[in-house]
Amino acid sequence: MSTRIEHDLIGDKEISNECYYGVQTARAAENFHITGVTLSKFPTFIESIAKVKLAAALANYELGLLTEAKKNAIVEACDQLIAGKHHNQFVVDMIQGGAGTSTNMNANEVIANIGLELMGYQKGEYKFLHPNNDVNLSQSTNDAYPTALRVALYEKLGELSESMKIIQNSFAKKAASFKDVIKMGRTQLQDAVPMTLEQEFRTYAVMIGEDIQRVHEARQLVREINMGATAIGTGINAHPNYAKTVEAKLQEVTGRPFVTAGDLIEATQDTGAYVQISGVLKRVATKMSKICNDLRLLSSGPRTGFGEINLPAMQPGSSIMPGKVNPVIPEVVNQVCFQVIGTDIAVTMACEGGQLQLNVFEPLIGYNLFNSINMMKNAFEALAYTCVDGITANPERCKALVLNSIGLVTALNPFIGYENSTMVAKEALESGRSVYDIVLEKGLLDKAELDDIIQPENMIKPRNFGLSEKSKFVKL
Amino acid sequence: MSTRIEHDLIGDKEISNECYYGVQTARAAENFHITGVTLSKFPTFIESIAKVKLAAALANYELGLLTEAKKNAIVEACDQLIAGKHHNQFVVDMIQGGAGTSTNMNANEVIANIGLELMGYQKGEYKFLHPNNDVNLSQSTNDAYPTALRVALYEKLGELSESMKIIQNSFAKKAASFKDVIKMGRTQLQDAVPMTLEQEFRTYAVMIGEDIQRVHEARQLVREINMGATAIGTGINAHPNYAKTVEAKLQEVTGRPFVTAGDLIEATQDTGAYVQISGVLKRVATKMSKICNDLRLLSSGPRTGFGEINLPAMQPGSSIMPGKVNPVIPEVVNQVCFQVIGTDIAVTMACEGGQLQLNVFEPLIGYNLFNSINMMKNAFEALAYTCVDGITANPERCKALVLNSIGLVTALNPFIGYENSTMVAKEALESGRSVYDIVLEKGLLDKAELDDIIQPENMIKPRNFGLSEKSKFVKL
Amino acid sequence: MSTRIEHDLIGDKEISNECYYGVQTARAAENFHITGVTLSKFPTFIESIAKVKLAAALANYELGLLTEAKKNAIVEACDQLIAGKHHNQFVVDMIQGGAGTSTNMNANEVIANIGLELMGYQKGEYKFLHPNNDVNLSQSTNDAYPTALRVALYEKLGELSESMKIIQNSFAKKAASFKDVIKMGRTQLQDAVPMTLEQEFRTYAVMIGEDIQRVHEARQLVREINMGATAIGTGINAHPNYAKTVEAKLQEVTGRPFVTAGDLIEATQDTGAYVQISGVLKRVATKMSKICNDLRLLSSGPRTGFGEINLPAMQPGSSIMPGKVNPVIPEVVNQVCFQVIGTDIAVTMACEGGQLQLNVFEPLIGYNLFNSINMMKNAFEALAYTCVDGITANPERCKALVLNSIGLVTALNPFIGYENSTMVAKEALESGRSVYDIVLEKGLLDKAELDDIIQPENMIKPRNFGLSEKSKFVKL
Amino acid sequence: MSTRIEHDLIGDKEISNECYYGVQTARAAENFHITGVTLSKFPTFIESIAKVKLAAALANYELGLLTEAKKNAIVEACDQLIAGKHHNQFVVDMIQGGAGTSTNMNANEVIANIGLELMGYQKGEYKFLHPNNDVNLSQSTNDAYPTALRVALYEKLGELSESMKIIQNSFAKKAASFKDVIKMGRTQLQDAVPMTLEQEFRTYAVMIGEDIQRVHEARQLVREINMGATAIGTGINAHPNYAKTVEAKLQEVTGRPFVTAGDLIEATQDTGAYVQISGVLKRVATKMSKICNDLRLLSSGPRTGFGEINLPAMQPGSSIMPGKVNPVIPEVVNQVCFQVIGTDIAVTMACEGGQLQLNVFEPLIGYNLFNSINMMKNAFEALAYTCVDGITANPERCKALVLNSIGLVTALNPFIGYENSTMVAKEALESGRSVYDIVLEKGLLDKAELDDIIQPENMIKPRNFGLSEKSKFVKL
Repeated sequence: MSTRIEHDLIGDKEISNECYYGVQTARAAENFHITGVTLSKFPTFIESIAKVKLAAALANYELGLLTEAKKNAIVEACDQLIAGKHHNQFVVDMIQGGAGTSTNMNANEVIANIGLELMGYQKGEYKFLHPNNDVNLSQSTNDAYPTALRVALYEKLGELSESMKIIQNSFAKKAASFKDVIKMGRTQLQDAVPMTLEQEFRTYAVMIGEDIQRVHEARQLVREINMGATAIGTGINAHPNYAKTVEAKLQEVTGRPFVTAGDLIEATQDTGAYVQISGVLKRVATKMSKICNDLRLLSSGPRTGFGEINLPAMQPGSSIMPGKVNPVIPEVVNQVCFQVIGTDIAVTMACEGGQLQLNVFEPLIGYNLFNSINMMKNAFEALAYTCVDGITANPERCKALVLNSIGLVTALNPFIGYENSTMVAKEALESGRSVYDIVLEKGLLDKAELDDIIQPENMIKPRNFGLSEKSKFVKL
Repeated sequence: MSTRIEHDLIGDKEISNECYYGVQTARAAENFHITGVTLSKFPTFIESIAKVKLAAALANYELGLLTEAKKNAIVEACDQLIAGKHHNQFVVDMIQGGAGTSTNMNANEVIANIGLELMGYQKGEYKFLHPNNDVNLSQSTNDAYPTALRVALYEKLGELSESMKIIQNSFAKKAASFKDVIKMGRTQLQDAVPMTLEQEFRTYAVMIGEDIQRVHEARQLVREINMGATAIGTGINAHPNYAKTVEAKLQEVTGRPFVTAGDLIEATQDTGAYVQISGVLKRVATKMSKICNDLRLLSSGPRTGFGEINLPAMQPGSSIMPGKVNPVIPEVVNQVCFQVIGTDIAVTMACEGGQLQLNVFEPLIGYNLFNSINMMKNAFEALAYTCVDGITANPERCKALVLNSIGLVTALNPFIGYENSTMVAKEALESGRSVYDIVLEKGLLDKAELDDIIQPENMIKPRNFGLSEKSKFVKL
Repeated sequence: MSTRIEHDLIGDKEISNECYYGVQTARAAENFHITGVTLSKFPTFIESIAKVKLAAALANYELGLLTEAKKNAIVEACDQLIAGKHHNQFVVDMIQGGAGTSTNMNANEVIANIGLELMGYQKGEYKFLHPNNDVNLSQSTNDAYPTALRVALYEKLGELSESMKIIQNSFAKKAASFKDVIKMGRTQLQDAVPMTLEQEFRTYAVMIGEDIQRVHEARQLVREINMGATAIGTGINAHPNYAKTVEAKLQEVTGRPFVTAGDLIEATQDTGAYVQISGVLKRVATKMSKICNDLRLLSSGPRTGFGEINLPAMQPGSSIMPGKVNPVIPEVVNQVCFQVIGTDIAVTMACEGGQLQLNVFEPLIGYNLFNSINMMKNAFEALAYTCVDGITANPERCKALVLNSIGLVTALNPFIGYENSTMVAKEALESGRSVYDIVLEKGLLDKAELDDIIQPENMIKPRNFGLSEKSKFVKL
Repeated sequence: MSTRIEHDLIGDKEISNECYYGVQTARAAENFHITGVTLSKFPTFIESIAKVKLAAALANYELGLLTEAKKNAIVEACDQLIAGKHHNQFVVDMIQGGAGTSTNMNANEVIANIGLELMGYQKGEYKFLHPNNDVNLSQSTNDAYPTALRVALYEKLGELSESMKIIQNSFAKKAASFKDVIKMGRTQLQDAVPMTLEQEFRTYAVMIGEDIQRVHEARQLVREINMGATAIGTGINAHPNYAKTVEAKLQEVTGRPFVTAGDLIEATQDTGAYVQISGVLKRVATKMSKICNDLRLLSSGPRTGFGEINLPAMQPGSSIMPGKVNPVIPEVVNQVCFQVIGTDIAVTMACEGGQLQLNVFEPLIGYNLFNSINMMKNAFEALAYTCVDGITANPERCKALVLNSIGLVTALNPFIGYENSTMVAKEALESGRSVYDIVLEKGLLDKAELDDIIQPENMIKPRNFGLSEKSKFVKL
């Protein structure tokens, strides 16, 4: 296999001529054997880096900093990466030291070498197109890397929203089919008051809807980029018009409304947007975990649990218990949620650990945000398609539980008062008898009144029980 | 001491006649000996509960559900609580089981008994004004408690913003005084490129400014209340017009723009706003901790550290090392930040643990959010007044470090290229000589060119180095 | 009110003559308004500091470094603190900057001034007994403070163990009373196979027993002290025999087996023991939270839940739902557990944030470990005395759920194979019929065989189903 | 491609004849698209499952529950897996619902089909060797899966210890080479008192040594297995002698001291060992992160930082700043540590979320523990080989910082008292003069005395300064 010699600060290094990456990438690939998960596993991120490099080349050309030939080569090389080519050349571990320099140089070197071949040169003939002097022109890792992270996060958060709309929609449709199922509501796992299964499921759709809004807001935070900051935000080695120009080019290349930060020094060191996004992902996870806990509770049984709903059977549930079917989809979603919540702490510590003009831990931040989003997306779509869409209700059981319940007594409050109601409830619980019988027996209300009040359908919404209404039959 | 007998579901209980609280509060005070920190330590929360109860009484009266006499008694009792009276009657531990029922009943009982005395009755004569039937009318713990939490959080988040503006302002003012201090910027704790101390300190002001916006947004989330939800959000036992009416009354009583949630069932179980607020507090803490880490780094020394700035001496720093002065204020702020970050996990788990129609862990959520905000407020004001305002710079040392630095070589990049610059830097590091001398010796640039390029003042902002500009003297 | 003037590095300061503390304490009390929770709220910690100071005085005297008169004064002053006197003089906030210097100086000053009065002098006449030169002799905050933390933690962890034994014992006793209650076991909230309620409750006792062992092991870690380390562990200003001598004195004063660390520099900066203890507290909390979740599940109902056990009613459960009783004690224990889990992160970040020769964040570490232990102790005893001890079972319901269950089919596995069993289970679920009837109808086993196999009592333990045993009646 | 039809509770499914796995694995692979990281990426785990299955087959055979032919087939199939063959057949995502049933069935099916071929049958002819009836005989997922997890964790924790010994050894060797380097110790980033660089580096070796002990203790916890528990720990369908027999066989197969838990019901649901191990990994991570922070601080510079040591240059540090070298290895270790700390929360939530007789979230627990250990192992070895081993000191600079320091004044304490020393220190700081000159000028000590006391070499260990020694020259 033919090789070439490349050189850097550390010295010479032999590189296979098959490789589009160069010496700095090769060193980084050797230095960082941590997760075994390389950049190539995150195609959106690679495409985003390429878009940043492309925008930078266009800006540099427009400002007279780059020749047309070099610009054309860089643009074409970036287009190939955006089209999904050469991703296997991104060989550095996602978790790396150096604040992303290795990722940036991996891109710079791959783009330079693709470009060199396009220009008719050999890989490694950097005097004609240089990874640092040309591809990285007017840039530093410290602006190009976080900008690429943000371009990628903007896309991934959009994908997350889409998956949330899918599961939201599943809950909404399922709710609509449960309109007539009257059931007991529960607070603190204790019997409370009646509601419909539609209300219960619609709630999940509404909850997710709020979270979609929060994700949308968080997504706006990554619109702010720091191109033009160069090393520490002061813009050293950048043309005075560069930040403005590259902003326009990046908008054009991505079709997304990225804007230059108001203060580039701040933008270069401030990782607040990441910790906020991670916090919002945690919020989404927290609530989806709660929903999955509920689904598992409501479907507990089939004979010794709540048994109000049935989840679709996806696979046999046990290697020893024949016929057992488990809520495997909610269970896996729960685990994804725990993972997202846990990695939020990793992101937080990475953000807290930034020092002075830069946060060196952005690779970990990106790794976790991308992984969390990907896992949630997968999990939410599975929850929609292989669980919620197939849920069925047990309306008879739901109704029977309501009629047998002591919680009906709450509706008597406005008529016989909290203390009489308490007495009735206590007696029902101790004797095993029904609230209905006890109220009649004690003459607290007559049958017609009682029938009207504790009709479950009347208990699932507000009702006018003003002084005048109550005076018709109240026994206070 | 005279006593009265009160009665509840559990049975009879003797209550001192000095107590405005009643039987349910007394039981809760016995049941929950957890933190020893009672509700009375959170005056804003007590006032908020009183405002909720006041608004409910006004709404109930307007809807014809409560007599004028009872309404007047409740209103006057609430006014007393809002004025700070009787807070010592709130004796239940902040961390309690029962989803806040004990807190709600503590308020209901205290208000009923104050009201009874105002009406000319004895404490405990609940047939004239009843904690549940009258004070709690049209309410449940499950709407009144979270609404009060939100009313209180709205105020506390406002206070937090104010304290953040104070520390932001301190940094901004201090930055303005550091305009002429040229210093080295550092990335990854390694010498990078020059900047001014003004730029460094202004960054902190800008960072905090972004966080103030995030707190402002998070604050909007608690504007959404669920009054009218009653037990589980279906509005059982509430008048159809109650939710609307009490919303208007609460706006009037608080002067704040609270609005009824679009879906009361969702609003009753969804704790997303809390986990989001906690996440935003975590963000603020993460960044403020980073700032304090920076202050401690920059002031490290006095002789063996960075020594670029001096923090005001607040107290002797050691019981054994005479003359030692420590950065005690940043250190205590760091600890507050760690605490806020840690309790975010407690809040998150409390939110995740909610089940079905209610989250029973809201007391822990409130406890932590209030404590986090209070500690941050105290810490940020201390940081402003007893640290940042008194910081002084060591401009000579800052300047000397710049002139001695290898980082100047970055500015040569556009002229002699990344590889020549690397060679110069390497030689400077190995020989201990200056970049300046080596460049001249090697004839890479002439003295006039070099002086122009690496003038520190020219390096702290973008500069036009287009192909034509560079052609004047570039040696690529 | 008379005052005295004291002096320190910062300058002069007027101190009320009523105060036993001096100038450094006064400054710290002003500097740190963070939690409002002062040292005086942690009596075990104050007593532990006093024991450390007492041991140091005895060692200094024995080594000829302190006169007998001074030694006697210090010893008597410490004895008063150990007896609980003057704790109100410990006025500094528990969360403080300065690595505990303010706490150490608070103790040094209070002891010096009590000692001065015992010697017949006025408070503040430090030339006769000096806070630093005498009370703090051979010590630094950096050895005295962590040693006192450890002495206190040793006691507190002992108290925690005792409370764990109480709740363990409650579960064990309760289990013994549930011997005859056959019930369904559940995995993944789905019906599994039968067990007894005794087995279920005994498990909790066994689980807690394992945790008691882990707490015991963690407690051993704080036996290691670093007296003699002085400022950074090198022992500067300490007599060569001091470490050995003070170790013996501390053992004598405390009656506990404290030992000097093998490497004092390591011991002064290494906070591993704290993060480990916090991790063990987290473990205890995690498992106790799981137990409380189970109690809440098993007692869910009374009519629409699992309803297998009843928790004692501690207080009315709702301000709107009469007769509702909630599992308030498990609920409050859950919250304590969440808090302990969350503050573990604060402790972890505090430990991670230590730099070079010292961890400056020990005050936060101590604050959280003490609070976590205190809350758990309170919570566990409440759980034992006001919940577990009063639990009753619903044996009829438990039995009925078993008989109605499909889970019985598991016992048929060894006889009719996994696939036949699956078929039976499926038919039972779909038809609503019993496993028993279907097996007989299909002639898979005869009645006598079946009765023997699925007798619940035979299903709650291993049984010999070897090839020869099965050959008697197997239908594979 | 030829296929076969397999059948389970859900129905029929076509399986490629190339697959050794069967219908249940195929369903699981379809159901769980979460991380994309399949079981096959965790070879130690697959080998451990095979060892468990092998031990079970041997025990079943010995108890007369399995024919010799079936036993031989299973044994040989397991041996192939242990030898690393067929791992690509483990296609299920590591994060899965169902408490590991899919993993267990993946193993059962692969082993059955390999065994069938060994017996001369076709894949899928399960009547001759059945995944459930034979391979899984006397087992449930609920004992086989956690036992396999523990067998694997025992190995992985052993590997972690080895990597910790490597980095410990690197620090110890490096320390030995730094014996003569006198430098300033720092507390709170402020100049404290002198020490040697040997002491500083030896401390890291000692710290890591303590952590190795903690890992060793934690490793003992996974020696406890629950084979024989079957579904919920009651041992249903297991032979009375099975638990004992399989324990012996597993010891034999693994050569490791695994022991049957004292209470199998407890052992089946209790995940305490995992949360403890995760807590210990967190401890290790916390301290290693602190060490890396220190390395980055001590090597900060090269010109504007502490500059006491130099880390080996591993790669160019910047795409824009030529010659910059960053501490990339400590930086990547920091990130691994943050990740381990964060995922501890995921493990903790997974453990807390277990319900009743089983914890369904063990797949997430295993995933995180394996990943954390693997990452730490990689990171620690990189730290040893590519960072610590190559560190060099700057002894001149270290010495100069000591001589210039005010911290020397601490040594004067025993002679001139804390207050005189404070005065000297203050004057030195304000005037910029040396402590030495001021002491002489004020006549506090004569030159010979002073030279003796503040000789740095005399300040790095305890020294006898008793009353009699001091009387020779003290000026108190």
